[in-house]
Amino acid sequence: MYKVNFDFLNSRLGKIWDEIFSRSMLIQAIHEERISKELFAIYMLETYQYTKHNPRNQALVGARNISIPHKYRSYCYKHAREETGHEEMALSDVRALGFELPDVELLKPLPATETLIAYLYWISSQGNPVQRLGYSYWAENCYRYINPTIEQLSRVLSLQKNQLSFFIAHSSIDEKHAKEVTDMITLYCKSDDDYNDICRVMETSLYLTGKILSNVYVEYEQLLRGDISQYQFLRN
Amino acid sequence: MYKVNFDFLNSRLGKIWDEIFSRSMLIQAIHEERISKELFAIYMLETYQYTKHNPRNQALVGARNISIPHKYRSYCYKHAREETGHEEMALSDVRALGFELPDVELLKPLPATETLIAYLYWISSQGNPVQRLGYSYWAENCYRYINPTIEQLSRVLSLQKNQLSFFIAHSSIDEKHAKEVTDMITLYCKSDDDYNDICRVMETSLYLTGKILSNVYVEYEQLLRGDISQYQFLRN
Amino acid sequence: MYKVNFDFLNSRLGKIWDEIFSRSMLIQAIHEERISKELFAIYMLETYQYTKHNPRNQALVGARNISIPHKYRSYCYKHAREETGHEEMALSDVRALGFELPDVELLKPLPATETLIAYLYWISSQGNPVQRLGYSYWAENCYRYINPTIEQLSRVLSLQKNQLSFFIAHSSIDEKHAKEVTDMITLYCKSDDDYNDICRVMETSLYLTGKILSNVYVEYEQLLRGDISQYQFLRN
Amino acid sequence: MYKVNFDFLNSRLGKIWDEIFSRSMLIQAIHEERISKELFAIYMLETYQYTKHNPRNQALVGARNISIPHKYRSYCYKHAREETGHEEMALSDVRALGFELPDVELLKPLPATETLIAYLYWISSQGNPVQRLGYSYWAENCYRYINPTIEQLSRVLSLQKNQLSFFIAHSSIDEKHAKEVTDMITLYCKSDDDYNDICRVMETSLYLTGKILSNVYVEYEQLLRGDISQYQFLRN
Repeated sequence: MYKVNFDFLNSRLGKIWDEIFSRSMLIQAIHEERISKELFAIYMLETYQYTKHNPRNQALVGARNISIPHKYRSYCYKHAREETGHEEMALSDVRALGFELPDVELLKPLPATETLIAYLYWISSQGNPVQRLGYSYWAENCYRYINPTIEQLSRVLSLQKNQLSFFIAHSSIDEKHAKEVTDMITLYCKSDDDYNDICRVMETSLYLTGKILSNVYVEYEQLLRGDISQYQFLRN
Repeated sequence: MYKVNFDFLNSRLGKIWDEIFSRSMLIQAIHEERISKELFAIYMLETYQYTKHNPRNQALVGARNISIPHKYRSYCYKHAREETGHEEMALSDVRALGFELPDVELLKPLPATETLIAYLYWISSQGNPVQRLGYSYWAENCYRYINPTIEQLSRVLSLQKNQLSFFIAHSSIDEKHAKEVTDMITLYCKSDDDYNDICRVMETSLYLTGKILSNVYVEYEQLLRGDISQYQFLRN
Repeated sequence: MYKVNFDFLNSRLGKIWDEIFSRSMLIQAIHEERISKELFAIYMLETYQYTKHNPRNQALVGARNISIPHKYRSYCYKHAREETGHEEMALSDVRALGFELPDVELLKPLPATETLIAYLYWISSQGNPVQRLGYSYWAENCYRYINPTIEQLSRVLSLQKNQLSFFIAHSSIDEKHAKEVTDMITLYCKSDDDYNDICRVMETSLYLTGKILSNVYVEYEQLLRGDISQYQFLRN
Repeated sequence: MYKVNFDFLNSRLGKIWDEIFSRSMLIQAIHEERISKELFAIYMLETYQYTKHNPRNQALVGARNISIPHKYRSYCYKHAREETGHEEMALSDVRALGFELPDVELLKPLPATETLIAYLYWISSQGNPVQRLGYSYWAENCYRYINPTIEQLSRVLSLQKNQLSFFIAHSSIDEKHAKEVTDMITLYCKSDDDYNDICRVMETSLYLTGKILSNVYVEYEQLLRGDISQYQFLRN
């Protein structure tokens, strides 16, 4: 039986998170207590964008017309189901901050967000069917890394529970999900090729998520400067 | 609120089933007690072929990148999950009949079976996202029509429970599924267009399933005549 | 080098065409000089429906993310291009018959037509990448079979050239296309598996096309009886 | 008629190219005459990776099952065809440098390259069908920006024509292609939405291409350090 080197995955995760934290202007804005509701709202609206697609691309793994163990296929459908509609929490949080949203169907993801979305559809619909577990692995295990930052964010903006429902819901759900992902990797990562594919997707999707943080900050600066931005409505 | 005319759907189903029953040589072979284990095995192996794809094309509805009510999307994933692996029962039944199967990955669906598979992927991946409910509607409600025939089949071939596991499992699961499909149609069939799409898919997919029965019989006759058939192994 | 048995393909084609001709009520209506402009129009409008999709599913073969010889991939794009927009000729012929068409985007294919469309997408997007050549093989070689019937049709309805542009254009273009398809099969049908897949798709897609003829006639009878039909506008 | 602001597109291109040139270690290595054959080979092998997919995702635009002007659909097929097999020139150049390539099917794109590939499939298969023209617009017009660098590269490494066939072929073909893309944008960019989608895809795809340059350099450094790399064979 193949022995998955989770320690290496975790150490890679730690390094990439450190890199993201040390470079991200958004994270710095939180740590330096400069974060504003508008900046946080842009971040949550981008979270809405990619979260909306997660059940869809997760289901695509299960829909692949190749031989896949029933239990893993079944996991894909179950996980897709459990994530369905979670994007609404992100919208609800933005509304609870006091912002009035336009028709959200008209909002477009920022380039970095669209890039992550594109990447997740790609790795879900072709290549090694287990590789998407690399994305779930960090996504369901991210709270140990981001919780302190979210707590500080919450403190600085004096956020109420109904303004942080997305993170609160996920940090509790994701414990169970994290265990399920680990179980799936343990069961279906059966070779060095599987391991490398899972690791590659884990690293790349986390790196692309880091790019969303940068893009959100740049968009916020444009908004402050009065440049054209679809987020203009946040300033009204 | 749109009122779904289930009576019309049911009367259409009744008519198409009558047509299938009156024309199908396979059904006649059962009623005339001429059904053989080989003929039944071919039917079950074709059932294996399309059943294998059902969770995949069901999940594709939920994976569509368009606006779909969360509850319906969620139903698609749940239903996909509950059908995962059911094709194994069809194989198990054939093995329990005493046949030794070759590598099933090498078996190809008959033309009529491949046509149904193709049709289900098509109506699942484009067009009205509720239209696939038309397929589920008859598939989860078929036992009232086919049970007498299955009972006669069972009697003629003296089948044990482990040789009929596919039908036994489905006739019990499908009661719950039938209710869920009806609930989904009641909730999400909201216009004449929705209704017509559901009805069209219901009729066409049932008609194409009837064609599988014919194709199975023709293949069986070829086998008897000694013509080339992938089902040659059933005669050894 | 694999030797393709074109004689067998041709003899299979001959048999299936004979079967279609002997059973089709539409063909009989032509031979018995009972064909009407309305019946011909329904047939041309269904031809519009599937012809519209041919370049798209042809291009999907070339877009497949698997290893395919460049020359065959290139052929797929070339062929897709050469068929683009041909469906307009079918519409133009119907208009030249004197019918005023509603918004054609609102017309839906009949069940048998949608089944052929679904089948062609399926065999184009998965399975053996050369198998779609089986469809092209009969489609580009059909004029030897159907020309006498088209001539009789033309005589009975006193059709002008601008009312038969679809068939006139294709019977000349298709000579070149037929040669190209034969060349492609000769080059890329390299094993019994390839041959069987091409033959299966040839037979199944021709058989499904035969079903369109039947469906067109049934729809025409419904129209005559005054039943609900999207083709009601042909009677106004 | 909508007037496309090509000047703005060009000024955006100029800025992003400047940014790429000023930040890219690979470009600096060329300008500082530190470029090695190994580094150039890695770049060409990554070029092979995404170039291979370009005809496929281009054809997907033409295969979309939505209403698209025939002339634009036809352009997609034509362009797909003209780019088919061009990736072979990239391989040929690497071989002409003196490197012996392993089975290229086993080589995987670097993360940045896979991200561009994923993005191009995404923007080709959904969203505004004209948006992919934004990618072609910069790709077919890149030689004015990159030619001086390629010339310097050629000088530093004393490259022969058969070691630069990819760039030589494209810089001549692309003049015609650039005109065609401009014609298509002029014809089918018909609204601010179209323009914004084309501009967004232009910027994002060029930015992601810049990331490939960075990733290539990082991979090269890993190779120099003796870290694990699929490009180990370049050092043997």
